[in-house]
Amino acid sequence: MTLPAPLAPHSVIGILGGGQLAKMLVQAAAELGFRAAIYSDDWGPALDVAGSHLIGPYENLARLDEFARAVDVVTYEFENVPVVAAEHLARRVAVRPGPQALRVAQDRSVEKAFIAGLGIPVAPFVAVREASDVAAAAATMAGWQSPAILKTARLGYDGKGQARVAVPGDLAAAFAGLGSVPAVLERRIDFAFEISVIGVRAQDGSLACYDVPRNTHEGGILRSSVVPAGLSAAIDARARDVAGRIASALDYVGVLGVEMFYLGDKSTTPLLVNEIAPRVHNSGHWTMDACAVSQFENHIRAVAGWPLGTTARHSNAEMRNLIGHEADAWPALAADRDLCLHLYGKREARQGRKMGHVTRLAPRGP
Amino acid sequence: MTLPAPLAPHSVIGILGGGQLAKMLVQAAAELGFRAAIYSDDWGPALDVAGSHLIGPYENLARLDEFARAVDVVTYEFENVPVVAAEHLARRVAVRPGPQALRVAQDRSVEKAFIAGLGIPVAPFVAVREASDVAAAAATMAGWQSPAILKTARLGYDGKGQARVAVPGDLAAAFAGLGSVPAVLERRIDFAFEISVIGVRAQDGSLACYDVPRNTHEGGILRSSVVPAGLSAAIDARARDVAGRIASALDYVGVLGVEMFYLGDKSTTPLLVNEIAPRVHNSGHWTMDACAVSQFENHIRAVAGWPLGTTARHSNAEMRNLIGHEADAWPALAADRDLCLHLYGKREARQGRKMGHVTRLAPRGP
Repeated sequence: MTLPAPLAPHSVIGILGGGQLAKMLVQAAAELGFRAAIYSDDWGPALDVAGSHLIGPYENLARLDEFARAVDVVTYEFENVPVVAAEHLARRVAVRPGPQALRVAQDRSVEKAFIAGLGIPVAPFVAVREASDVAAAAATMAGWQSPAILKTARLGYDGKGQARVAVPGDLAAAFAGLGSVPAVLERRIDFAFEISVIGVRAQDGSLACYDVPRNTHEGGILRSSVVPAGLSAAIDARARDVAGRIASALDYVGVLGVEMFYLGDKSTTPLLVNEIAPRVHNSGHWTMDACAVSQFENHIRAVAGWPLGTTARHSNAEMRNLIGHEADAWPALAADRDLCLHLYGKREARQGRKMGHVTRLAPRGP
Repeated sequence: MTLPAPLAPHSVIGILGGGQLAKMLVQAAAELGFRAAIYSDDWGPALDVAGSHLIGPYENLARLDEFARAVDVVTYEFENVPVVAAEHLARRVAVRPGPQALRVAQDRSVEKAFIAGLGIPVAPFVAVREASDVAAAAATMAGWQSPAILKTARLGYDGKGQARVAVPGDLAAAFAGLGSVPAVLERRIDFAFEISVIGVRAQDGSLACYDVPRNTHEGGILRSSVVPAGLSAAIDARARDVAGRIASALDYVGVLGVEMFYLGDKSTTPLLVNEIAPRVHNSGHWTMDACAVSQFENHIRAVAGWPLGTTARHSNAEMRNLIGHEADAWPALAADRDLCLHLYGKREARQGRKMGHVTRLAPRGP
């Protein structure tokens, strides 16, 4: 198989989505001499830095055609790009990662079945597609002898579209409460902590992973990511292996985030995959400050057909999100000389909205 | 004295000039949540990343007025901004660094007299403003008992506007060869190597310097900058002190580059100031990769009235410019996993043109 030639500098990287991830991708692309064009259905901070942009619904095929003509490759910053849009674009210009990754990541049922099908442990789950599935799912849950979480199959992010289910008898009400849309019931996992693998796969199939961060969430939103995570070498290697197998199975190109629960070394399944994100990932933001090549640059390198850059880190790091009005404290944050400050340039601080992040660096430890 | 309030995120940083330094300033501003607007007399790579731009001659006062209305502060990427333009803008909006720094840096005679006036050693020099000055200058040069270099007082950069003068009798021809424009004759210095201090001064007068790089030039163009430079602690401290005194004397705000010749610890004048650059400086590009806060971010912080970020470096670094067609080797450079690659996005590689740079990082040493 002959690989396409790498894109030369000055080529245009097209990005679907205009949020902070797109903004950081644009910045990384510009550092390598690329230009960037955004397609978004709304204003977003990426529009302030991109060389050009188109605003339109993701389903507007004529507008997508216009976008395809203006760019040399298409990538995206979020997994809820309509598959029909990605497939339409893919008939005109390379789309990386390919639409297959979107198809898997967009539906939690499909995603969990796909990962489990690779022989990779996931939390026990059962699909609840419609009200008539509730009784069987409740029976499955009874067998778990554990509380569970009901998650909508589609369009969930940052803790949205989720409901706790304490006992099987609560499932029907929880399903109705989420709007009776297709969902997945998952056994609640008593994990030690959460980790993620930020991997990047090039067009030639080569793969590299950043050091694994330990993540904490609050209210379903990522609060902080810390490297090193303090994992044993064996668990660390297993986590990377899992991410690599998922990326290979998807014939993936670009950065892939794989969120995992770490249950402790004594567990028979020390790692369970929670979900995958076919894009640069919030838990990899520390790579901007602690690595010579960030996840954003490596994503651009991969989608442009370039060789991967190093994923080594030169420093230990603790990344903390600035959520909602936390970013209003920018004068104090700017005065803290131990912090690398990143503000996304969003015009309005709403509750739960990611407005920026800070990274605290420390000399590299084990 | 009350300092103006720091500019809030979303404020617009206006930058005069559209080249690679402006581009890197725009990128740094965007990371802090600022927007950027460029005023330039020609297309340049900064226009691909700035939120907005105006193209016009720097002497077009009406166009400058339009620019002033669109921005919250003005800074610049090059020292040859017409002083009249900076002064015109300064009556409408804060210009940082102030026009005074431009006035000094634009004329080599003024600059050398200014620095010498602070009691800081410079290479012996004599002004050659017109042909009638040649005889006296040649007599001065005879006293040096050394070859000399004739440099135009204005608009010299990257080795342009310079001529070697081997013996006093050659001066008249050299002066004519440079167009009989006002010039400065400098004694040629036998230095051990060149260094520079990249300092940054905040609005409150606080000052910080990055670690001092050792620089090499080829054909008058910066070839490489290496940190650490290998200076003794005493010389290192003296270099920083000199930069600080110059910045304070100019009541400077922003990043200032001070180029120096290092003559060896045994010299009675181990350091001579060569020239100053009232802007971010090519010999500080390694700070993008080797420091938590780059010279570009610290310049933006200073002009926005923010506290300075750290100037500490986490790694040793060697920065090498990509000049002219050297950047055509991007496939090999991209494949070298030890390099941080920066391409400026210029559309055409001309001889002597800075097209990008690479930085090689190594674990931090002394």
